[in-house]
Amino acid sequence: MKNILIIGCGLIGSSILRGVISKKISKNIYVYEKAKKNISIIKKLKIKCKIVKRFTNLPIKFDLIILCVPMSQYKVIIKKISKFVSSKTILTDVGSTKETISKEVNNLIPKNKIWIPSHPIAGSEVSGAEHGDKNLFKNKWCVLIKTKNTKKINLNKLIIFWKKLGSKVITMNSKQHDVVFSMTSHLPHLIAYNLVKTATDFEKQKKYKLIKYSAGGLRDFSRIASSNEIMWRDIFFSNKKNLINVINLFIKNLSLFKNNIKKRENKKLIKKLISAKKVRKQIIKLKQDINRPDFGRL
Amino acid sequence: MKNILIIGCGLIGSSILRGVISKKISKNIYVYEKAKKNISIIKKLKIKCKIVKRFTNLPIKFDLIILCVPMSQYKVIIKKISKFVSSKTILTDVGSTKETISKEVNNLIPKNKIWIPSHPIAGSEVSGAEHGDKNLFKNKWCVLIKTKNTKKINLNKLIIFWKKLGSKVITMNSKQHDVVFSMTSHLPHLIAYNLVKTATDFEKQKKYKLIKYSAGGLRDFSRIASSNEIMWRDIFFSNKKNLINVINLFIKNLSLFKNNIKKRENKKLIKKLISAKKVRKQIIKLKQDINRPDFGRL
Repeated sequence: MKNILIIGCGLIGSSILRGVISKKISKNIYVYEKAKKNISIIKKLKIKCKIVKRFTNLPIKFDLIILCVPMSQYKVIIKKISKFVSSKTILTDVGSTKETISKEVNNLIPKNKIWIPSHPIAGSEVSGAEHGDKNLFKNKWCVLIKTKNTKKINLNKLIIFWKKLGSKVITMNSKQHDVVFSMTSHLPHLIAYNLVKTATDFEKQKKYKLIKYSAGGLRDFSRIASSNEIMWRDIFFSNKKNLINVINLFIKNLSLFKNNIKKRENKKLIKKLISAKKVRKQIIKLKQDINRPDFGRL
Repeated sequence: MKNILIIGCGLIGSSILRGVISKKISKNIYVYEKAKKNISIIKKLKIKCKIVKRFTNLPIKFDLIILCVPMSQYKVIIKKISKFVSSKTILTDVGSTKETISKEVNNLIPKNKIWIPSHPIAGSEVSGAEHGDKNLFKNKWCVLIKTKNTKKINLNKLIIFWKKLGSKVITMNSKQHDVVFSMTSHLPHLIAYNLVKTATDFEKQKKYKLIKYSAGGLRDFSRIASSNEIMWRDIFFSNKKNLINVINLFIKNLSLFKNNIKKRENKKLIKKLISAKKVRKQIIKLKQDINRPDFGRL
C-alpha cells in the first residue's frame, strides 16, 4: 500500500500504527489524532508517520482508512473525510458492534465507495497510545463483515492487511457478528459493571467495609469494569436489541440457580458447576486463554 | 508448637504444610489425606511430615488441628477426631462460610474444647497439592471468627500462626463474615458460573459457534467458573440466605442497567460506568490487585 490513514490513535489505533510500521505495510502513514497525550507518545516513539490534526490540507487519496475512534464519533468523522475516500479507498473500522453502525456508515458514504467493517478481538481494560503494542493482534481473531455487495478483491486486500498484523481473519455478516459478541463480550462487560455497582450499593447499605476483601472474586470483575466508558456506552447502545436478549437469558438462568440453592437441589447444582468446567477446557483448547492458574497479582 | 494436624492436603492444606515447614512453626506435623494423588505429591516433595490415612492409631494430643476439607465433610471428620482434641487443642478450619458451619461444629464438640474458625482469603480456580505454595497466604487477609466465648490467649495463638504464614489477620463475627463474602466472593463466583452456563445455552439455541470468540470477556469468567464444584456447592448452600439477598440486589441493578440501555439514558449510564472505574482504583490502592493491564494470556 502507498497511503494509509489511521483515524484515532489510542490503544487500538496506535497498535495498528506500530504494526504497520513494523511489518512495512505502507509507504506513507497518516495519523489523525487530537488528544495531546496520544500525540506526544507517538512523537516520543519517533515513529515515522505524519500526524494530522485537521482534515483540511490532506492531498492524498488513501488505499486504506481505518476508523479507530469510539463509534459515536463515526458520523462526524465520515462527513469530514468523505473527500479523501476515492473509489479505490477501502474504508474500515475497529468497532465492536456492526449491524446498526454499518448501515449508518453506508448511508453516509456514496454508493460506489468501499466500506468493509473490521473487528479485531483484541484490547484490554486500558486505553491510550501508551499501551499500544505492535503484537496486540497476534494470534487474535479479526472479524470482517461481508455483505452481498462486498467485492472479493477488496475483501482480500483487507484480509491480507490484518493477517500481516498477525490476526486470524474470519468473515461474518453483521447480524451474526452482533449476536455472537453480545454473548461473548458485551454481556460479560455489562455483568462486570453491574457486579461492581452492586458491591458499592451493598457496601453503602450495610455500612461494612467490604471492597478491601475483594481478592476472593470481585477483584477480577473490577478489572473488566474499569474499561473505557465512552466505548462501552456506544457498544451497549448500538447492540441493545441483542444485549437485552442475552440479559434476559442471563437473569432467567440466575433465577434458576437461585432456586437450586434455595431448595438445596444438590444434583442439579453440581451438574451445572461441572459443565462450566468443561467450557473452560474448550476455551483453552481453542487457545482463547492459557491453562495457568491465577492466584492473584500482588 | 509441638504437634500440628492438617486434615486434607489439597491446595490450601498443602500450602499450609509447606508454610509450616518453611517457617519451622511446629516440631511434628501430621497430615491426614486419602487421595493418592495428593499423597504422592507430598512424598515426592520429601516434606518432613507424617502422612496418616486413618485416625485410629494417632497417639498425639495436638496443639493445632486445621480442617482443610470441603465443609460438607466436617461432620464426619469431627466425629472421628474428637478423641485427639484435648482441652488445649485449638481446632480451626479454612472454610469460606462461617455462620451455619461454626454452629454445627460447636454442636459436635464438647463445650470445653477450643473452636476458632479461620478463613484465609487465598486460593485459585485450581485444586490439589500440586498447586500448593508456601507463600500462598503472604500479604493476603485471613479472617478469624471471634465470639463472646473466644479466649484471648487462644485467639492470639492462632493469630500468630497465620501471621507466621504471611497473612494479614483480622477478626469478625461469623454473621458479618458471611455478609461480606457473600458479596465479594460468593456472588462473583455464582455470576461467573451463570455467565458460562448462559453462553453454552445460547450457543445451543443459536447454533452459532461462539465459545471460540471468548477472548473479548467470557474467557476471564470461564477461568473463575472452573473452580472446584464440591467446594462451591458447599459454599452456596451454607451461605444461601445472604447469597439470595445479593442475587436479588444484583438482578434489581441489572434490570435498571437494562432499562438505561433500552431508553438510551446516556447520562445515567455513563455515570454508572465511571463509578465502577473508581472502585477499581480503590481496589488497587487497597492492594487487592496490581495496576497492570491484562491483554489476555496467549
